[in-house]
Amino acid sequence: MKGSSPLIAVVTIGDELLSGEVLDTNVGAIASALREPGLRISRHVTVPDSLEEISREVRGLASSFDAVIVTGGLGPTSDDLTTEGVALGTGRELVLQPHIVENLKLFFSRLGRPMPDENLKQAYFPEGATEVPTAGGTAPGFMLEHDDALIAVLPGVPREMESMLASDVMPAICERFQTAGVIVTRRIMTFGRGESDVAKLVADRIGAGPVDYGFLVMGGPIVVKLTATGTTHEEAASLLDAEQAEVLSRLGNLMYGVDDQSMEEIVGGLLRERGMTIATAESITAGMVASRIANVPGSSAYLLGGIVAYTNEAKESLLRVPTGLLSEGAVNRPVAEAMARGAREAYSSDIAVATTGVAGPGSGGEAKPPGTVAIALAAAEGTISLEARLPGWRNMVRSIATMAALNFVRLHLLGEKQIDGW
Amino acid sequence: MKGSSPLIAVVTIGDELLSGEVLDTNVGAIASALREPGLRISRHVTVPDSLEEISREVRGLASSFDAVIVTGGLGPTSDDLTTEGVALGTGRELVLQPHIVENLKLFFSRLGRPMPDENLKQAYFPEGATEVPTAGGTAPGFMLEHDDALIAVLPGVPREMESMLASDVMPAICERFQTAGVIVTRRIMTFGRGESDVAKLVADRIGAGPVDYGFLVMGGPIVVKLTATGTTHEEAASLLDAEQAEVLSRLGNLMYGVDDQSMEEIVGGLLRERGMTIATAESITAGMVASRIANVPGSSAYLLGGIVAYTNEAKESLLRVPTGLLSEGAVNRPVAEAMARGAREAYSSDIAVATTGVAGPGSGGEAKPPGTVAIALAAAEGTISLEARLPGWRNMVRSIATMAALNFVRLHLLGEKQIDGW
Repeated sequence: MKGSSPLIAVVTIGDELLSGEVLDTNVGAIASALREPGLRISRHVTVPDSLEEISREVRGLASSFDAVIVTGGLGPTSDDLTTEGVALGTGRELVLQPHIVENLKLFFSRLGRPMPDENLKQAYFPEGATEVPTAGGTAPGFMLEHDDALIAVLPGVPREMESMLASDVMPAICERFQTAGVIVTRRIMTFGRGESDVAKLVADRIGAGPVDYGFLVMGGPIVVKLTATGTTHEEAASLLDAEQAEVLSRLGNLMYGVDDQSMEEIVGGLLRERGMTIATAESITAGMVASRIANVPGSSAYLLGGIVAYTNEAKESLLRVPTGLLSEGAVNRPVAEAMARGAREAYSSDIAVATTGVAGPGSGGEAKPPGTVAIALAAAEGTISLEARLPGWRNMVRSIATMAALNFVRLHLLGEKQIDGW
Repeated sequence: MKGSSPLIAVVTIGDELLSGEVLDTNVGAIASALREPGLRISRHVTVPDSLEEISREVRGLASSFDAVIVTGGLGPTSDDLTTEGVALGTGRELVLQPHIVENLKLFFSRLGRPMPDENLKQAYFPEGATEVPTAGGTAPGFMLEHDDALIAVLPGVPREMESMLASDVMPAICERFQTAGVIVTRRIMTFGRGESDVAKLVADRIGAGPVDYGFLVMGGPIVVKLTATGTTHEEAASLLDAEQAEVLSRLGNLMYGVDDQSMEEIVGGLLRERGMTIATAESITAGMVASRIANVPGSSAYLLGGIVAYTNEAKESLLRVPTGLLSEGAVNRPVAEAMARGAREAYSSDIAVATTGVAGPGSGGEAKPPGTVAIALAAAEGTISLEARLPGWRNMVRSIATMAALNFVRLHLLGEKQIDGW
């Protein structure tokens, strides 16, 4: 190794990253993946789509770093120069990989089209490189050894990059550096209170134990980030388990999940456990609640559907909201309750959730200000509802209202009688 | 100068940028500021809070670039090492600036507290540096000349950095490089073909004129990025206007908008112009189409609502899809057409668009493979539909299907009779 601990560099490639058009999120994803085995990035360089720049950078970093992770510029067009740049920088020929040509042809035949000639360049690797198979796209990546460094080259599309990093590159890096110390993080997902309220509830734990705290604001959800260090993954994870129990005793049902669990997965799991079905009636969210529920694979087991009633006429004709109710405005608890009952009836579902509100920027003829939402849930035993004022602008209001509706379902399924926070 | 046009490098400093905890937005802000006078960033490097790394990087970049903009690490704490690093890298002493000590004392006296000793380090500059006054914080920045390069050092707090960049650094840069040229970019948004197909359609223009081409893949849409340089903004813009006309003649209706225009804005604009209303019938997209249409402020003028029919029962009861049709599967053009007609009737809308498909990962009982979608549009004059196979995984399929449905509406409103691409 070239230092006391492994020196890892990241090179992201693309004019669009330097022009500020695209925000570079790959570095953060790579940093997260490396954190697990206790590694970190020592340098990050962004270079333009230039053969000379790419080759010089890769050659230079390979001489002073132990691993160089390169992302971007593996596409089929003329400004995708990464493979050529890496070949030039490491003094290797480009070699055609016949099986990748076959894979590309297969990819396009599945789409019912011939492979464009431009895509053929994606089937060339520098001599001696090993393939990192694609994760859904056309661009495979590769790894090679140069100047006592591991060079890994991945596409820039975040989803593909992350999948290929996890499947092939991280195992190669972990094996190479025989990593010892382990840093593990856990994200406690909360919804319904602001950052300072959440921080206040766990304030006595900050600095009280071996686990570090951080707080992230993610639109509606507030994330409590716990970080622990151990000699093994198990040791660090058990510190986190103990701390999570402390956090849970303070946050209760404000916590809806951990790590990558989404609100719709949690709600879906609860519906599935109870063998219950759901339908939606949406005005302000206009389909986002149903669509979020449908994000989860297998959601057709409990999602029957929903009615988007953007106009008063649709609320009356499709959801049977009484005309009298709507004469006093469409954003209030009685209207939301009638919508939820209407959807429950239309779909014969066990429960139905409804949203109505003022997204803004204007009031849309409503007496209430933008950000006002009413949410209701209809079930066999009756209907519950809340009215709240959400922060933000049009699409942030709609997004938080969607989370609030899902959270309302979650709290109901958990047996909460009093639901007042958004 | 060290190249034919000014070579500008940006160095952002901080462990938190490399750990992925903080997303680096300063590069984008600097790129925007430079774009106006026709300049661009040629390299971006992120280094940790390390004296050695900072000094080596600044020295190296100053030798091969004309300007080096450094941000971050000017705070009062022990991990803020940028000033020392720049002094070391340029071989200069640190010199105490008495007037900055006075400014710092004044800053703290206004907060009603004495100046902490830690802040005294912020009053040191490398010998020969000129001050860039603070913009609200405690950290002043500085500029200095080294190895025929301008080195500008600014705090990392975005608001302070941007203000100080605009007030002091950009004027110095513009004066130094006597910038005459202006670089202007335009993004041509396309939908319905892959990156290589789009590139092929405009291949004869690449390198044929004064406008540079780039291609970006953004999930479904493919972006053709045009970049032109002129002595004035108007000159560059008129080059882009001419090139856009060339592109349009090759892409036709594959192009749906430019720059930040979204598909739903374009569709909303067309509906509004024609005074038409729309409703949706969604299975695979489960509300995403309606929700995307509702993203646009004022969409209540044309969006009446939609029915999410996730189950066959809902397709029958709410959209009046004949049972006989569904016995042969729910993913085909006749079912999509019946759904569209059902929604048009339920909402009494001018047109209605429908989606049905297999999102995956499994086939959900359908005979067709994941990624298969059928889209239909019902209007007074009849119903049209298409079936396609989309690439990607579950939620990418749903997202592209949503774009495809909106694009189908767009093409219909533009009068296309034959709509076959997704």
